[in-house]
Amino acid sequence: MNHKAFATANAILFALALSCGAAAAQTAAPTEDFKPSSLNQPGQQYPQVNSQGYARFRIEAPKAQNVSVSLGLGGSGGTALTKAADGAWMGTTAGPLDEGFHYYHLSVDGGTFNDPGAQNFYGSIRWESGIEIPAHDQDFYALKDVPHGRVQQILFASPSTKMPRRAFVYTPPGYDQNQKTRYPVLYLQHGWGEDETAWSTQGHANLIMDNLIAEGKAKPFIIVMTYGMTNDVKFGKLFSFDIKPFQTVLVNELIPYVDANFRTLADQPHRAMAGLSMGGMETKTITTANLDTFSRIALLSGGTFSLEDVTPDFKAKVKLVFVSFGSRELKDGKVGFPGGPRMDPKANDEALKKAGINSVFYVSPNTAHEFLSWRRSLHELAPVLFKD
Amino acid sequence: MNHKAFATANAILFALALSCGAAAAQTAAPTEDFKPSSLNQPGQQYPQVNSQGYARFRIEAPKAQNVSVSLGLGGSGGTALTKAADGAWMGTTAGPLDEGFHYYHLSVDGGTFNDPGAQNFYGSIRWESGIEIPAHDQDFYALKDVPHGRVQQILFASPSTKMPRRAFVYTPPGYDQNQKTRYPVLYLQHGWGEDETAWSTQGHANLIMDNLIAEGKAKPFIIVMTYGMTNDVKFGKLFSFDIKPFQTVLVNELIPYVDANFRTLADQPHRAMAGLSMGGMETKTITTANLDTFSRIALLSGGTFSLEDVTPDFKAKVKLVFVSFGSRELKDGKVGFPGGPRMDPKANDEALKKAGINSVFYVSPNTAHEFLSWRRSLHELAPVLFKD
Repeated sequence: MNHKAFATANAILFALALSCGAAAAQTAAPTEDFKPSSLNQPGQQYPQVNSQGYARFRIEAPKAQNVSVSLGLGGSGGTALTKAADGAWMGTTAGPLDEGFHYYHLSVDGGTFNDPGAQNFYGSIRWESGIEIPAHDQDFYALKDVPHGRVQQILFASPSTKMPRRAFVYTPPGYDQNQKTRYPVLYLQHGWGEDETAWSTQGHANLIMDNLIAEGKAKPFIIVMTYGMTNDVKFGKLFSFDIKPFQTVLVNELIPYVDANFRTLADQPHRAMAGLSMGGMETKTITTANLDTFSRIALLSGGTFSLEDVTPDFKAKVKLVFVSFGSRELKDGKVGFPGGPRMDPKANDEALKKAGINSVFYVSPNTAHEFLSWRRSLHELAPVLFKD
Repeated sequence: MNHKAFATANAILFALALSCGAAAAQTAAPTEDFKPSSLNQPGQQYPQVNSQGYARFRIEAPKAQNVSVSLGLGGSGGTALTKAADGAWMGTTAGPLDEGFHYYHLSVDGGTFNDPGAQNFYGSIRWESGIEIPAHDQDFYALKDVPHGRVQQILFASPSTKMPRRAFVYTPPGYDQNQKTRYPVLYLQHGWGEDETAWSTQGHANLIMDNLIAEGKAKPFIIVMTYGMTNDVKFGKLFSFDIKPFQTVLVNELIPYVDANFRTLADQPHRAMAGLSMGGMETKTITTANLDTFSRIALLSGGTFSLEDVTPDFKAKVKLVFVSFGSRELKDGKVGFPGGPRMDPKANDEALKKAGINSVFYVSPNTAHEFLSWRRSLHELAPVLFKD
């Protein structure tokens, strides 16, 4: 791994370290207007969320000795549950959580289990429970009565890994009607611990696009989501990650399959790559090594571009650089690993602009290294992605 | 509910009562060649399965008082786990399980949780753990290096339920290349407690079709899978199920959407419906009430057709009747609710044939009311479905 990728990996680790998912603790009693989370399994009353963003849990395990909830990657949003009169374990977070989606799990007598009330989402190299704190701007990813695109599962041949591999492909509304239209393509990567299901479930990428297209705010494009092979590396050992196997799958196998099987604009000006967190690191590494393949690059909580990235080849071929973070990932406007180099993504953005690069920088307000940052980032990215 | 549907519901209840998922108990020690189940979460070593079909579980919950495994709807495949030297709870089933897929869950100190080692599948109105006992004939639903169709998520407008609804659509290999080809359509329903994800995950409907088509054994057709709205009814109260809301969604909303958005052969001779268990009851009720819409009908562990179903209209319009069961659902060749009427599906099949109906009857060897019966049933159905 070269020093630039190293710096990116550092930034990701730092960002992860910040990701507790819980806002500052609060001592006032929560408002008693709790309702079932929108991500509950059918008919389940718990977990619940109130209008302030507190979460309340109820777990039936009458003979257990202790039950607690771990929220977020860092586990710092832990909530110990206590036995209620009916024998169920109950508890409410100490304060409101950030708006948006959070992974969590239970600890029951020392074992790690999911909340039987909540749906599961793949994160942290396991299926985790998920809870959704309604965001004030949730309308942009809501399921509405507008024309809907489709999310398709494809199985493509991968000689390099000796197995058929899975990807999900979003085709925009009208794709099947407009048989002569060809579309640009975004290759969109998940983060460490996640997989190819992330962007179209917890990410709502399809609904974000459907809504933007219905409002005339984004031109239709295809999105391809596959597994970034990120999870063979143990957390904390990102530096040993070898990009080559995934680069081969993506560039030599998946892109040709997609161009052969979908009505794509199959050239560099109409091909983009974006990724969140470790998927951003993959995106930066793969796109800069394949500038004849990709023209548009987006890193969502996954590092930045700086002037040292702007080679003559880069300047000639890259049509857009998009960098975003959740506001809680930045400290004094900077992001970096404690003790390591600190990057200033806003300063980098300004320097890139001055160097003639089409650079866009976005900060998601009051969110951390979590999916609301990335939903919002996609919502900001899509309108400008294939604009120029 | 009329008496015919009642008899069908009875049959389903009876079938469910038989579904323990565990074959006869065995006292000899299992062969020590256990391997991780193919349905485990990435990197997880447990649960494991041996070459005889025994399952072994390992759950970390060091402070728990008791941990057990419930296998199958009836829970009769229960396995109590005991604490091993390393503090983990371990246990092996008393005997081999039937080949194929089984739902299960854990009981941990009186609470119901999923096995953190296994992937989850929607059954019993909740996401359950799943385990796969390799079947001797598993090749027919294996992921192979053949041309693959796609499974697409669609969101279709449903004025009757005032919300966009989800379905999955399987389009066969070549669908996007052969722009002038139109295809017959099978509407394929899950059972009680399941949803529209069942057939393309635990059912492997897409892989079954891909393999049959690659071998030239089935002509390509489209499969549409949506939620049958079966799960609002409490288990054991199937008689109060009202088919009309789902019939409206299927016939008045989904079928027009599919015919408008996919290259279908949009007429009665090229439209089929099939369902498993309670989905079979839905299939029988909806198809017989809509004989101008459907020509081919399949009930998988979901009742039978008898001579009293053969009205002149039925005889004129129905091109195929397919009925199947797992062998363990039949007793002396019959299926029925204890104390209620017993049906003889083989005798019914023969009577239908004599009455001039194109009837097919299939029994899956050594399986119960579980998904291997239904994978095999689809594998038998697909080659003959649109043949005549």
